[in-house]
Amino acid sequence: MQYRAIVRILGLLVALFSVTMIPPALVSLVFQDGSGLPFLLAFILCLVTGILIWYPNRRYREDLRAKEGFLIVVLFWTVLGSFGALPFLLLEQPGMSITDAFFESFSGLTTTGATVIEGIDYLPKAVQFYRQQLQWFGGMGIIVLAVAILPILGVGGMQLYRAEIPGPVKDSKMTPRIADTAKHLWYIYLSLTIACTVAFWLVGMNLFDAICHAFSTVAIGGFSNYDASLGHFDSVGVNLVCVVFLWIAALNFALHYGAVSGRSLKGYFYDPELRVFFIIQFSLVFVCFITLVEYSWFADAGIALDQALIQSVSVSTTAGFTTTDFAHWPAFLPIMLIFSSFIGGCASSTGGGLKVIRIFLLFLQGKREVNRLIHPKAIYSVKVGGRALPDRIVEAVWGFFSAYAMIFVIVMVCLIATGMDDVSAFTATAATLNNLGPGLGSVAGTYADVSDSGKWILVLAMLFGRLEIFSLLVLFSPTFWRS
Amino acid sequence: MQYRAIVRILGLLVALFSVTMIPPALVSLVFQDGSGLPFLLAFILCLVTGILIWYPNRRYREDLRAKEGFLIVVLFWTVLGSFGALPFLLLEQPGMSITDAFFESFSGLTTTGATVIEGIDYLPKAVQFYRQQLQWFGGMGIIVLAVAILPILGVGGMQLYRAEIPGPVKDSKMTPRIADTAKHLWYIYLSLTIACTVAFWLVGMNLFDAICHAFSTVAIGGFSNYDASLGHFDSVGVNLVCVVFLWIAALNFALHYGAVSGRSLKGYFYDPELRVFFIIQFSLVFVCFITLVEYSWFADAGIALDQALIQSVSVSTTAGFTTTDFAHWPAFLPIMLIFSSFIGGCASSTGGGLKVIRIFLLFLQGKREVNRLIHPKAIYSVKVGGRALPDRIVEAVWGFFSAYAMIFVIVMVCLIATGMDDVSAFTATAATLNNLGPGLGSVAGTYADVSDSGKWILVLAMLFGRLEIFSLLVLFSPTFWRS
Ligand SMILES: [K+]
Ligand SMILES: [K+]
Repeated sequence: MQYRAIVRILGLLVALFSVTMIPPALVSLVFQDGSGLPFLLAFILCLVTGILIWYPNRRYREDLRAKEGFLIVVLFWTVLGSFGALPFLLLEQPGMSITDAFFESFSGLTTTGATVIEGIDYLPKAVQFYRQQLQWFGGMGIIVLAVAILPILGVGGMQLYRAEIPGPVKDSKMTPRIADTAKHLWYIYLSLTIACTVAFWLVGMNLFDAICHAFSTVAIGGFSNYDASLGHFDSVGVNLVCVVFLWIAALNFALHYGAVSGRSLKGYFYDPELRVFFIIQFSLVFVCFITLVEYSWFADAGIALDQALIQSVSVSTTAGFTTTDFAHWPAFLPIMLIFSSFIGGCASSTGGGLKVIRIFLLFLQGKREVNRLIHPKAIYSVKVGGRALPDRIVEAVWGFFSAYAMIFVIVMVCLIATGMDDVSAFTATAATLNNLGPGLGSVAGTYADVSDSGKWILVLAMLFGRLEIFSLLVLFSPTFWRS
Repeated sequence: MQYRAIVRILGLLVALFSVTMIPPALVSLVFQDGSGLPFLLAFILCLVTGILIWYPNRRYREDLRAKEGFLIVVLFWTVLGSFGALPFLLLEQPGMSITDAFFESFSGLTTTGATVIEGIDYLPKAVQFYRQQLQWFGGMGIIVLAVAILPILGVGGMQLYRAEIPGPVKDSKMTPRIADTAKHLWYIYLSLTIACTVAFWLVGMNLFDAICHAFSTVAIGGFSNYDASLGHFDSVGVNLVCVVFLWIAALNFALHYGAVSGRSLKGYFYDPELRVFFIIQFSLVFVCFITLVEYSWFADAGIALDQALIQSVSVSTTAGFTTTDFAHWPAFLPIMLIFSSFIGGCASSTGGGLKVIRIFLLFLQGKREVNRLIHPKAIYSVKVGGRALPDRIVEAVWGFFSAYAMIFVIVMVCLIATGMDDVSAFTATAATLNNLGPGLGSVAGTYADVSDSGKWILVLAMLFGRLEIFSLLVLFSPTFWRS
């Protein structure tokens, strides 16, 4: 393992991350909320630490192999998540425990969007802004991870998206390729954010709210600078803008990349995952709408449609914005929405969950099994978009699915061991592993009442979810650490 | 499809099944409980219907193909389950609705052991006996299904146990092979039942109770002729006998078959599934024991060990006998035990759940995925007991796992739609799909309070579990019904 090359990159990342403390400091200056100092302090701490880590290792610029790739990916989230907790620790308002500071920071950076803060409305503007910004940078990290890194590492069948590369990847080409792809994705992500900000502003938000919510919308993060989340605005326009941008952000960013570089929308029309995604979306909205109307849950069908749309899109894309108390919706709706978050967004989007393509592949493989049982001698392959998939990819997807289930059971049992009730434990596990945010029961609103040990377990679940299980799981294998 | 050949076999089965009404009638005679008539009536109805179905088709003795195999397997449980409901419908005590009669019959025959009857202690002896006997015949059916039929059909990777047969099975040899294997299994099953009866009798049960509980122990069914289940006896001896015979019944019956025909115990020592099974069993007992002692749940450690042993074995093998109110055990124990029922017994046992071998294969495949990620160019295979498994089998296991998960979610959401609360719905789904029996929440005791629609959904879940999902799922494929 080329440890010093890894440490060098980490140092750079931390130094670079220090810059993210500047915008909140500026916000503080603008609004005169008196919370600028902690951010300046955090800036200096990050910058100095980063440089101190980087400087002694600055000459170790070796190209990295898959193994180092995994370590960097895991360290990226854990180290930045930890430094991201700095401002929360330094701030006097809210005065947060170490556990809470780490929980909030990891929840932000992994775009989970579960919060331990009650009274967000009364936080200094700079803190409100910082939380949203954490999600935005987290979302950016996910896109680069999902489009540029995971396909090369081959996690959970994502080599499916290794595109043009035939055969095993040349190790030596890894770093420049990632850097180039990342740059392009960055432009797309930034443009989407600006468009979303303008749209939110046009439907009536003030500029500050618009930026804050654009951050957490394109990141499918779900943080809001109001305790009532999107419900604060009580506006069909806001809900619609949110839905549209959640849908865009939940699509495969490689599609957006293709559309921009090829100047054509054709890619969208031929993508099988996109089609399945929208079938699922419309089905969910439809079922919610019909059930809400059936139960006369809202005053009229218009409100029911608005709420069915925003809540089912918000939960199923794993954003987790709330406009209404969906946890108490009638019949099977709450649990159905929680289950829909297991599907989540498309691969290489900012959404969480198992990802639409994997669910689709599982479904196709299930169909293949049925056909094989009926005609044992025939040969069936799993075809997506007209081409047969190698068994290697299908196997990786299975592995992903069962590892997900295993982690799910372990996390849930551990949570119950900390004293959480069954429903809260089940949905809290789903909400963190799927990077969704809100659960049901005692975690339907905030996670403030969860025990400290419970919070740390949930932080681990967020990481497992965001790192697509296997990126983190490989570190637990002895083989990984053998030279 | 050779429908008339299938109908002929069905007729024979129903006629044969009529004989199972005789022993309860005799029991009624012995105990003079006045409930003999309904059983005699049911006997005549079954016999006449069976003969009427069989007679016109008696000449259609064609050999059957895989397709017909699936249909017969599904019809075996649905038709016999329906005829098994007859006595419940004809009896005055208990006066049962159609739904309840079918629920009780299917729960018995699939060895699920969930009951809708409250006041079992006060039922006529004949009815008590009939319930236990249903489980016993169900267990017999499962063994034949699992050892002789599923490996040939290749459901859920069970072609792993196709033993000596190289390449695809000759269709024409199917019927005689099954008949021969079934005969041998029958002897083993019968011997085990007699041994279990004697053992129960030796530790203090009367003969009637001993026979009744031996029936539901070797079938891993979990019915009891007492409302308090095994707890009625409050006896360490009874618990120990039950544990030992549950363990024997939860092993692969092909191992027993091999031991009997080869007159050697060697097979047991070299079976990797058996080893994993006992590792899981001892771990569960250990965790339950430690936790119960930690919480000082029982008066002394001896009682804690006794209860930890019987309850964790009873739930994890999917028997579902209760000796104490384990649903209210402290901390994570209830949910851990419910989760353990997903693992269940070994393949080709009377136990339910996903089966130990499949969980083991999923674990090995997960390990392979991790290794593949670390060394992308190396070739790894999944090895069980020294031999590498064909990918075909591993794929079938994956298919099984995800189909199980899919059915689970659908059943649970449907139950909640009928008005059941989340915890009860979750555990009721697990308890029926895993053929376990008792759940938590409102279904911790009996299923009497479940709505009618809920009961029918649960009957379907029992069938899906017992038929290893795919045997039933293939019938939903249009391909299946095309000539
Ligand atoms: K989220
Ligand atoms: K059972």
